Amino acid sequence: MALKDVVAGKRNEEGIASALAVLKQQLGDRLQTGQAFREQHGHTTTYLTLQAPDGVVFAESADDVKAVVKVCSQYKVPVIPFGTGSSLEGQVNAPSGGICIDFSRMNRIIEVNAEDLDVTVEPGVTREDLNVYLRDTGLFFPIDPGANASIGGMASTRASGTNAVRYGTMKDNVLAVTAVVTNGEEIRTARRARKSSAGYDLTRLFVGAEGTLGVITSVTLRLQGIPEKIAGGVCTFDSIKAACDAVIMTIQMGVPVARIELLDEVQVRACNAYSGLNYAEKPTLFVEFHGTEETAALQSQQFAEIAAECGSIDFRWTSDAAERNKLWKARHDAYWASRALAPHLDGLSTDVCVPISRLADCVVETQLDIQENGFLAPIVGHAGDGNFHVLILFDGKDAESVAKTEAFVARLNRRAIAMDGTCTGEHGIGQGKMSFLAEEAGNALDVMRAIKMSLDPDNIFNPGKLFRLV
Amino acid sequence: MALKDVVAGKRNEEGIASALAVLKQQLGDRLQTGQAFREQHGHTTTYLTLQAPDGVVFAESADDVKAVVKVCSQYKVPVIPFGTGSSLEGQVNAPSGGICIDFSRMNRIIEVNAEDLDVTVEPGVTREDLNVYLRDTGLFFPIDPGANASIGGMASTRASGTNAVRYGTMKDNVLAVTAVVTNGEEIRTARRARKSSAGYDLTRLFVGAEGTLGVITSVTLRLQGIPEKIAGGVCTFDSIKAACDAVIMTIQMGVPVARIELLDEVQVRACNAYSGLNYAEKPTLFVEFHGTEETAALQSQQFAEIAAECGSIDFRWTSDAAERNKLWKARHDAYWASRALAPHLDGLSTDVCVPISRLADCVVETQLDIQENGFLAPIVGHAGDGNFHVLILFDGKDAESVAKTEAFVARLNRRAIAMDGTCTGEHGIGQGKMSFLAEEAGNALDVMRAIKMSLDPDNIFNPGKLFRLV
Repeated sequence: MALKDVVAGKRNEEGIASALAVLKQQLGDRLQTGQAFREQHGHTTTYLTLQAPDGVVFAESADDVKAVVKVCSQYKVPVIPFGTGSSLEGQVNAPSGGICIDFSRMNRIIEVNAEDLDVTVEPGVTREDLNVYLRDTGLFFPIDPGANASIGGMASTRASGTNAVRYGTMKDNVLAVTAVVTNGEEIRTARRARKSSAGYDLTRLFVGAEGTLGVITSVTLRLQGIPEKIAGGVCTFDSIKAACDAVIMTIQMGVPVARIELLDEVQVRACNAYSGLNYAEKPTLFVEFHGTEETAALQSQQFAEIAAECGSIDFRWTSDAAERNKLWKARHDAYWASRALAPHLDGLSTDVCVPISRLADCVVETQLDIQENGFLAPIVGHAGDGNFHVLILFDGKDAESVAKTEAFVARLNRRAIAMDGTCTGEHGIGQGKMSFLAEEAGNALDVMRAIKMSLDPDNIFNPGKLFRLV
Repeated sequence: MALKDVVAGKRNEEGIASALAVLKQQLGDRLQTGQAFREQHGHTTTYLTLQAPDGVVFAESADDVKAVVKVCSQYKVPVIPFGTGSSLEGQVNAPSGGICIDFSRMNRIIEVNAEDLDVTVEPGVTREDLNVYLRDTGLFFPIDPGANASIGGMASTRASGTNAVRYGTMKDNVLAVTAVVTNGEEIRTARRARKSSAGYDLTRLFVGAEGTLGVITSVTLRLQGIPEKIAGGVCTFDSIKAACDAVIMTIQMGVPVARIELLDEVQVRACNAYSGLNYAEKPTLFVEFHGTEETAALQSQQFAEIAAECGSIDFRWTSDAAERNKLWKARHDAYWASRALAPHLDGLSTDVCVPISRLADCVVETQLDIQENGFLAPIVGHAGDGNFHVLILFDGKDAESVAKTEAFVARLNRRAIAMDGTCTGEHGIGQGKMSFLAEEAGNALDVMRAIKMSLDPDNIFNPGKLFRLV
């Protein structure tokens, strides 16, 4: 499937050839140009057309990154950072070719400061590896987008996930980054202090920039103490509206819920089938509470009362770890469960985020749209943030199916924007949502463009993403 | 006192005269040029030399702001936004003259969305007025820098205060701003969704920019539910180290403390005398817990156990509102209490922020510095964030006292930076800390400069703040 935004850019053939030759000399085998390597580093996990880079550098240090950026600056060649390739909107495609920097070898934990609840890592560290490493410290890194993404990629797409409702997104949990900027110099955006009023917030500028302003070479993250007690449950409602009301009231009452996930009927059916569960096929909330033995129990009780007031049918509560893990495994497998509903079809996962008061409206209107157009498309969402995902199952080889799917995604994005929401809560813009960012941001896009052009005048950093320059 | 950074800039006399003439025609009495008005809008509340603007526009709408920016763009005249004038580092001085925009008449609450826990306000709304307005909704705006600052000013300086440890800073609580940028156009940085991955985080770029990138015309804020129960207490320790250890363990254990303030011996003495209290003159923590009846009690108990383990001498706990208000009134009056220690002297309030593991070191080294130099300088801090303030009492008319004070401030800033901290946790850079930002940011300052020059090529937005352009 080739969305209209995924167009091939102009290629600087001469520059690319020169850069490859110079980098081969400088980096030897750390530069690979074989077709298999290149194609593994274009966009392979999503619905978007693969656009492979011309070479892949397996960077082993910030010095390697500097070398690539210096050479690519000199020859005006694109530089595309690559973590694990789990992004969903074409962030790692190379529409104008260029050099991909693969961070899988830059996967060292640089420094854990347990007393300060922070850690500095290389960008290739994955969130699961980080949490395994941290286990003995009593600390954990809470952001969980589902995929075992790299920390650099998560920072670059401003990732979040199931427990952002309590712990925030990458915006809230990155204390500082180092990044190689256009002249090949490395800057550090901030210190390890938990807050600062010292000048422009460059950290937040690089978080979510999708590699378009420079290449992140390390990330300093806030950590959390592992909760003494984790409890959770499954709560069923007769309508999406009732489930959303329970979410709103939970947030408004200040119950510090750690996760509160909304699954629509179709998603519950998919999860039941895929993960061997037997939940009622009704709008459902998966919830989780973190605290001490007492506070987790109190929170669960508060939530149960709120849910009952909003008309919940059933609340199955558990503090048993095995039971809880089964539940969240099913939630994390929602994508695969949905794909299994129609294994012969392709899947397009898209997300929007609206003010929570509009979540029920947005989900219900989207369900109607799905029904009217005969899609099979489960909905699952981070309800506490007003963020939800639709997985549209479609036939990528059928032009009509593709066109219908594109039109549905456009309606969904515009519906969210019209409700004062955003065209993406956590997947980012990449190539897939460029036209919706333009609609959403309006003339603020000119400010983004001005920043891009000032920090990357030759447009070498991940070109063809976020917005067009002219 | 004139710090070396507070230098008069070049004045564009012809442009200023033209801009004043055009604006007088456009805005009539909303532009005031009398000396009293002008001097009230230069920096009057701090140790920095007053540098008055040439005219003050009492803006009544975003259209007035656009008019000022358009005219000032045309004639290349500085534009300085002014909230309540409570900033501490010269943020509202006019070193090159120009037009001050006073926001006191733009003090409307534009929209409360109670279900979404957000509110949109004009920049001149003060935080106390906002909270009075919100009272009936069951919601409140938690950021409390002490002064009754304007929301626009708080956003611009990335303010925080006593309960940032629980609720975050302005960075975490501003959802979006509208701002008039260099061409006189108004942009909106984000939508009301609680999170977004849609492009550069312009919200966080304008928060903390101190008016140097454009003029904020509205702010959308996150709100919190008013806690059912607020409890608090006073906890005394034999040493700063023991008090800091209790803070670190409280944070690490994930106790969601709402405020945790450190007062050194001198500050306790000052508060006792000024506010009629009788606390032991020892390192002291003021703490506060927000929750339900049960959770607030649980948190207090958890904290008491941690404090005892760290060697606390005494913990006086209260859930009585009057008692609690007295405590926090004393905390908020700490500045005046300190000034009252030596009413004939001037006061310089400065702040730094370090990783909390270094807080005890930084405070103790600073106390030694104070003793060695014979200063009277109480210390009070937002310990949970590693942020503390020193109020140095000095004689502004005595060159030696001024020079000694400047040297002390420089040592304090460098001490914090050397501990991987920042030269300001919440006061901002303004004019007073420009040289320390340069030391702290290193080559990242070039990135800040590039952004500034791209968004404000004629340097009209609050010039002479944050950094030098060349």
